[in-house]
Amino acid sequence: MTSALPVLPPLLDVAGTAVFALTGALLAARLRQSFVTVAFFALVTGVGGGSVRDVLIGVPAFWLTSPWVAPVVFTAAMLAWFMPVRIWPALLLEWADAAGLAAFSALGAAKALALGVAPLPAIVLGVVTGCVGGIIRDVLAGVPSILMRPELYVTAAALSATLCAGALIAGLPQSAALGMAAIAGFALRGAAIWWKIELPAYSRFDATDKH
Amino acid sequence: MTSALPVLPPLLDVAGTAVFALTGALLAARLRQSFVTVAFFALVTGVGGGSVRDVLIGVPAFWLTSPWVAPVVFTAAMLAWFMPVRIWPALLLEWADAAGLAAFSALGAAKALALGVAPLPAIVLGVVTGCVGGIIRDVLAGVPSILMRPELYVTAAALSATLCAGALIAGLPQSAALGMAAIAGFALRGAAIWWKIELPAYSRFDATDKH
Amino acid sequence: MTSALPVLPPLLDVAGTAVFALTGALLAARLRQSFVTVAFFALVTGVGGGSVRDVLIGVPAFWLTSPWVAPVVFTAAMLAWFMPVRIWPALLLEWADAAGLAAFSALGAAKALALGVAPLPAIVLGVVTGCVGGIIRDVLAGVPSILMRPELYVTAAALSATLCAGALIAGLPQSAALGMAAIAGFALRGAAIWWKIELPAYSRFDATDKH
Repeated sequence: MTSALPVLPPLLDVAGTAVFALTGALLAARLRQSFVTVAFFALVTGVGGGSVRDVLIGVPAFWLTSPWVAPVVFTAAMLAWFMPVRIWPALLLEWADAAGLAAFSALGAAKALALGVAPLPAIVLGVVTGCVGGIIRDVLAGVPSILMRPELYVTAAALSATLCAGALIAGLPQSAALGMAAIAGFALRGAAIWWKIELPAYSRFDATDKH
Repeated sequence: MTSALPVLPPLLDVAGTAVFALTGALLAARLRQSFVTVAFFALVTGVGGGSVRDVLIGVPAFWLTSPWVAPVVFTAAMLAWFMPVRIWPALLLEWADAAGLAAFSALGAAKALALGVAPLPAIVLGVVTGCVGGIIRDVLAGVPSILMRPELYVTAAALSATLCAGALIAGLPQSAALGMAAIAGFALRGAAIWWKIELPAYSRFDATDKH
Repeated sequence: MTSALPVLPPLLDVAGTAVFALTGALLAARLRQSFVTVAFFALVTGVGGGSVRDVLIGVPAFWLTSPWVAPVVFTAAMLAWFMPVRIWPALLLEWADAAGLAAFSALGAAKALALGVAPLPAIVLGVVTGCVGGIIRDVLAGVPSILMRPELYVTAAALSATLCAGALIAGLPQSAALGMAAIAGFALRGAAIWWKIELPAYSRFDATDKH
């Protein structure tokens, strides 16, 4: 459970944090909160998933040692605050969130593998990295969680994480594994946004089950 | 704060995870979620309590190194998905949850003691191990938390954790301590289910307190 | 990321935990919960913020090794339980909470710096230490989070944490840095309580943004 952190493309990492932070900041702005609360939402959404991954593995949270993350989160909060919400098309944000989801899920699985986590738990940690920031954002805001929406979301994260872990275990170079996995997850989530693809919901109830 | 992990009966550990995972998966199914969300609920409910215990102690989460936990969680999700909900009697599930609660609370206290935690915090960590998975499940689903229900629940966890820690400190062998504590907690929770035993609620309000 | 823990004034630490624990216990009492639930709320509110700080840094949670924290939390739960709620004036509690917020935010930043965290993340960890216990309390209880209230709250925590980190980096002795920062944060939060000072809320919406 040591060493050999993957040499992550730093731009990717920062871009993913920025996009997630922006979704958190914009949600807080939509709820008409103050700037400080907007910044707090940017923080927990931007770094929440990666932080949970890191503390589960038992290493310090990645943003404590990064010179980039805190300024990026703060910039995202400023952007959300000073630009009128109506110029942020909801669809553009959803696509940006899709990119962050796909990239972070792949990244999370790669980091977990590099830190010695077994393949299946590493995939789970990839999904956690991609999804948990948004879940914390929604729970804090008191809005229905992304977890409970019918459109493919966790599934896209699972695809990214699984492909990335599989490719790394198969011996592909890291940049190829990350890029391929992120593109596949992004494509799936994009298709879900575009064609409103939903997984079938559980439907084995009948009236006698209600209680 | 090192070494000498208790040699836990692996079957107990896996069975506890399975039962909790099943309660999470079934709640998601009742809420008519997709399979991926059902699996996610199985995961957080099954491993949530033990994970919080482990990160508070400062060790990697137990399921990252276990070859059993991820498959067991996945199997629980499959069971919940493919078997019609009406054949899962609510009462059976409550009893299974009671068994998981009692076993995990004892186990959590034993693991904390073995890792060098002081007795009182170790008991608290036992309660956390038993209860937090269900709390996370309820918060994510947006249903009233088990914490807020009047029936004895946290109390049964506290009984298990306290008896187990006390017996270990008194020098009893681990299997005896775990077994005795788990049975006592299970009996108390079972009595609460059967006779609807409730702790007295706080009642020192009068009308002038309302605000 | 090692050693040299700040020699914190132990009384301050214990007093802060006690005050926060009391706010958690009293909320549970107002919600007419049982004693065990009241104690559980006292625990998570009292130690939640510091625990999240510690696990993010990668050290064991502070209360696992403290002989004081668990008894203090328990005493706070007993106080909330046995004294009639109407003798707890809401305003007194808000002032006590303000003291805890200011002291813990400064303390959290100081501990993070002492453990080798960079200045900006250390300030963020100070805010987390001061605010997260109350946020967990509110999420568990299902009441609107302090995060979403318009009065200055996170801002006061940010002031305490920033002043404390700045003073320590500038070379001030720890007791001076902690004291000065805590007083400033307490004064700001106190002013917000007294004069109902609110930060401006986000207001760049117009009717076309609703969706």
